[in-house]
Amino acid sequence: MDHVDVVFDKLKVDEITDLVSTESCGAISLFVGTTRDYFEGKRVLYLEYEAYDSMAKKKMLEVCQAIREKWDVQNIAIIHRIGVVPVKEASIVIAISSAHRKESLEAVQFAIDTVKAVVPVWKKETYEDNTYSWKQNKECCWSGDASTPDSQSVNTSAPCNHTVNIYSNRDLL
Amino acid sequence: MDHVDVVFDKLKVDEITDLVSTESCGAISLFVGTTRDYFEGKRVLYLEYEAYDSMAKKKMLEVCQAIREKWDVQNIAIIHRIGVVPVKEASIVIAISSAHRKESLEAVQFAIDTVKAVVPVWKKETYEDNTYSWKQNKECCWSGDASTPDSQSVNTSAPCNHTVNIYSNRDLL
Repeated sequence: MDHVDVVFDKLKVDEITDLVSTESCGAISLFVGTTRDYFEGKRVLYLEYEAYDSMAKKKMLEVCQAIREKWDVQNIAIIHRIGVVPVKEASIVIAISSAHRKESLEAVQFAIDTVKAVVPVWKKETYEDNTYSWKQNKECCWSGDASTPDSQSVNTSAPCNHTVNIYSNRDLL
Repeated sequence: MDHVDVVFDKLKVDEITDLVSTESCGAISLFVGTTRDYFEGKRVLYLEYEAYDSMAKKKMLEVCQAIREKWDVQNIAIIHRIGVVPVKEASIVIAISSAHRKESLEAVQFAIDTVKAVVPVWKKETYEDNTYSWKQNKECCWSGDASTPDSQSVNTSAPCNHTVNIYSNRDLL
């Protein structure tokens, strides 16, 4: 089963682990993305995430499907927190279960790379001096979109290549 | 900081995540090994782990050191549960934090492969028909040790090669 969500609440790793846990699996691999206190030499007080909610969930489900085409995994959870995420707290938790460990370990790495590349989430970094900056993911395939602030050139490195047939920029219109 | 332990209590993924969480890190990667309900066609009721406790912790610390020689990671936790571990529950949790995700994702895969290869832990599988079997890890470098039941031939595949200079069978004597 695939569990994807975009939520305002604090993410609980235990609960998300339980979501993917099943009797037939011997392995659960997880990735937890957290807010760092520094970014390029500036002290970060907190991050604030915004998402194009329905499209984010659609893209997350496509990531799940792409995982299932590559690996024999049982359950997948991709949960993104939005709103304010203080330093040390999690903005995203990905959990994948599989009978044996190789599949979930490889799949979770692909999952976070691909989520960063294709899921429409933006973040605002607020610094110690009360300045802030809206950021897109540097790796993102759609970061050349002029409608978003601080747009960056399209990155065609590995994460996008994984899924180039599934996630075109057109899908995001 | 390195946290290694061998415990009887149920493992809590949230608590182990907190152990490695730090303000300077944006990534925590985890592996959770759980009890499966079937092994080679036989229904498993539960597993029971035993460890050569002090040596297991020593070997886990060596795995931490090997990780640090390969990747720039912040905190590492390797916690193994022993005693009875029912189906679906975790026998091991490994959590690693790093500033960026690549390091912790790669390190956690190496960590579980290497722990399986070098840490002296045995497991007893109890089946539905009340038969049981003591098992060593098939991947284990020291599984040729005749002093243990059901010994298997020494496996010299990748996980052992990672650490061949660090973990010789002699270290376990």
